[in-house]
Amino acid sequence: MKAVLNYLKANQPRFIDELCELLRFPSVSAQPAHKPDLENCAAWLTQHCRQLGLDAELCPTKGHPIVLARTPRRAGRRPHFLVYGHYDVQPPEPFELWESPPFEPAIHGRTLVARGSADNKGQHFAHLKAVEAYVKTGTDLPCDLTFVLEGEEEVGSQSLPPFLRQRREELRCDAVVISDTGMPAKNLPALTYALRGVVSLEVTLRGPSRDLHSGLFGGSVENPAMALSQLLAKMRDAKGRVTIPGFYADVVALTPLERKQLRRLPGSEEGHRRFLGVPALFGEAGFSSLERTTARPTFEINGLTSGYQGEGGKTIVPAWARAKITMRLVPSQRPEEIMKAAIAWLKRLCPPTVRMEIAPGHGAPPYLVEPSGVHAQAALRALRAAFRREPVLMREGGSIPIVTDFKKTLGADTLLLGLALPDANAHSPNEKFDLDCFAAGQRMSAWLWQELAKTK
Amino acid sequence: MKAVLNYLKANQPRFIDELCELLRFPSVSAQPAHKPDLENCAAWLTQHCRQLGLDAELCPTKGHPIVLARTPRRAGRRPHFLVYGHYDVQPPEPFELWESPPFEPAIHGRTLVARGSADNKGQHFAHLKAVEAYVKTGTDLPCDLTFVLEGEEEVGSQSLPPFLRQRREELRCDAVVISDTGMPAKNLPALTYALRGVVSLEVTLRGPSRDLHSGLFGGSVENPAMALSQLLAKMRDAKGRVTIPGFYADVVALTPLERKQLRRLPGSEEGHRRFLGVPALFGEAGFSSLERTTARPTFEINGLTSGYQGEGGKTIVPAWARAKITMRLVPSQRPEEIMKAAIAWLKRLCPPTVRMEIAPGHGAPPYLVEPSGVHAQAALRALRAAFRREPVLMREGGSIPIVTDFKKTLGADTLLLGLALPDANAHSPNEKFDLDCFAAGQRMSAWLWQELAKTK
Repeated sequence: MKAVLNYLKANQPRFIDELCELLRFPSVSAQPAHKPDLENCAAWLTQHCRQLGLDAELCPTKGHPIVLARTPRRAGRRPHFLVYGHYDVQPPEPFELWESPPFEPAIHGRTLVARGSADNKGQHFAHLKAVEAYVKTGTDLPCDLTFVLEGEEEVGSQSLPPFLRQRREELRCDAVVISDTGMPAKNLPALTYALRGVVSLEVTLRGPSRDLHSGLFGGSVENPAMALSQLLAKMRDAKGRVTIPGFYADVVALTPLERKQLRRLPGSEEGHRRFLGVPALFGEAGFSSLERTTARPTFEINGLTSGYQGEGGKTIVPAWARAKITMRLVPSQRPEEIMKAAIAWLKRLCPPTVRMEIAPGHGAPPYLVEPSGVHAQAALRALRAAFRREPVLMREGGSIPIVTDFKKTLGADTLLLGLALPDANAHSPNEKFDLDCFAAGQRMSAWLWQELAKTK
Repeated sequence: MKAVLNYLKANQPRFIDELCELLRFPSVSAQPAHKPDLENCAAWLTQHCRQLGLDAELCPTKGHPIVLARTPRRAGRRPHFLVYGHYDVQPPEPFELWESPPFEPAIHGRTLVARGSADNKGQHFAHLKAVEAYVKTGTDLPCDLTFVLEGEEEVGSQSLPPFLRQRREELRCDAVVISDTGMPAKNLPALTYALRGVVSLEVTLRGPSRDLHSGLFGGSVENPAMALSQLLAKMRDAKGRVTIPGFYADVVALTPLERKQLRRLPGSEEGHRRFLGVPALFGEAGFSSLERTTARPTFEINGLTSGYQGEGGKTIVPAWARAKITMRLVPSQRPEEIMKAAIAWLKRLCPPTVRMEIAPGHGAPPYLVEPSGVHAQAALRALRAAFRREPVLMREGGSIPIVTDFKKTLGADTLLLGLALPDANAHSPNEKFDLDCFAAGQRMSAWLWQELAKTK
């Protein structure tokens, strides 16, 4: 292990250069215009894995390609672990809020700023570098590893489940390792044991067949933007609770022990308020911000579009209005049930003066893994060794839909070992990744294979 | 008059060609990129007026230029009338709903399709062509005319009031004539005796300092798009009434006679519903569609903008949300009072979890002129002569803010002699102008100067 750790230490500057190269691909999976960028990014990753001595394969799918890379296999059955990551990124808009261009990585001190730096290129790249250290120093890797790097995580991972089913035998493994979550502070490593699920939909209200002159026709026809406002307004009550009937029916309440554990994490409500830049916090009555973001479900409007949006004014009654919506789910809410309940409620609230169209989007169930299991305990030991600190147990508010697919298809639990700090700005302008976390993540990965191999 | 009418009849094809030339200027006053197009359009109009034998002047302003054109003056004091029009047009967006490009005039039968064809280039051009007929046939025009053609009507006519004050002596007149309203049907000429006023504002709610990951932060912070929806939802009640305190205090109720007169106009509720293409009509309880659009005030959302609007999804809590709003006013509501009341109400309803910014826009008071006056009676005679039909008296839902400025600065009432049919699509895609109305409008204008001259 000494050789591996020394190799990692000696090669940080080159690793950072390589990561910057990876970050320059504008691999925005939601925007069809970026399809070639996703293909180029996947090809670069495949080539890079081969240079590290991995057996890498660029696998086409109906969407964006999946990069599959295997460490050199030895004779005999050994423990097998799968490392998952995604090379696609969120749209960078609004561009004007970026302090440097999103796809031109900028380094300030120990911070690397670029779209995808934390979510997720920097995090899976740390695992690749740990494996490079084993291979290049001729150190025996005590288990078999397979990297699965996909390009559709930000748009619902449509191609991954069929890919897992198709390659089920080859990918069957003892556990899946994902670094795509957060850690509470630079010196506070974390194992995330629960994730929120998600359900997304788009609702459009159509009124008049075209935009109307608001002087000539205004007052005699429903304004779709007003109808949408009144509809959305009814989806959440004054106490911050979602009004969809049955929405909370399957929500598992936090145990007193869990609430106590959450309170031990660093950070204050006032610090949270300042960090978000809001005049006052808001959320479901009776819960702390940490509880609200990790253990309670939500109804969020991600976007509103209607009528004239240009400079100046345009005196119209718009022909239509649209909202993009996501709901975050917690154990044991089921995405299909919540989608069904949300659509039924929207339909019930829709006035007869407009036509409603609902486009259901992707969904993912929430996830919970027992922190007392052998793999989780091995991961906690690796975190301790790499960070020289006692790791914390966390819930996280985000969703990693494919965790459920790994369980269903490969029968494997997932270890969530996140390396992103709370101010990483994932999905926001000025996304960033801490270079100390990058280095510690490589060490953690190096130790992890030792610890996990012992569990067999 | 025979020579004038024959001249008009003989020259229709050329007039249409010239109007098409005028319509090709994309003179969108709301969009700064079109400034040169407004200047070119004004220069073209000035040149055209000179070719007709008018004394034309291109007057620069702080905004877009005003074209001033005088008929040849004769010695001695004669009746003086002012013809107002505007060469600027509404933004053409959304482009994809136009069946032909908005600034490439298309003729189908007797319909000319182009942005600005009805509002207002085609209408003021009819008056110019009537004057051309007088000049070119050597017919004595029995009064002095001054054309005032501005380029800022669609953005609040900021430059016109100071211009009127500056040229007050020269522009003092017996009445103002404006064709910028509608007529109920092709063979039903109309004098419009009342207009709605307007007040516009833009409200922005700012929450977090940047778009946030809805998984990591959703639930712990107010979503500005939800706050805006809930705010706007409260501005109108279930009976279609605006909730701003005092909003209806100064509204003059329709007299039984007026309600009766309105019922005599053609059209049915079902026809109105089909024309607008909505599943059901909606408006203030207790009023017909015609009453709602002409004699009742409104609160309209012209545009909504928040968060992600591109293809696919983006799982964020948006940093801000914005609504563009206009309120239509009726006699005797005062724009300043309504603006003040609306801002106070918005502020009172705004939750402490977001910061509110309000940008007040332009305003115009409602207008009402007595149909029994001498000028109105002269106008009705001209309509009768041109259309060979009994004209109707109308209220109109739109606003022509400068009507009030003419009254205040020049002391003159305005005659509203609209030539646009109800399906003209003003402010909508596929704006159109009927070429029979164009021709009849020229005849009406020709007769009008005869009839108005008699009133002195």
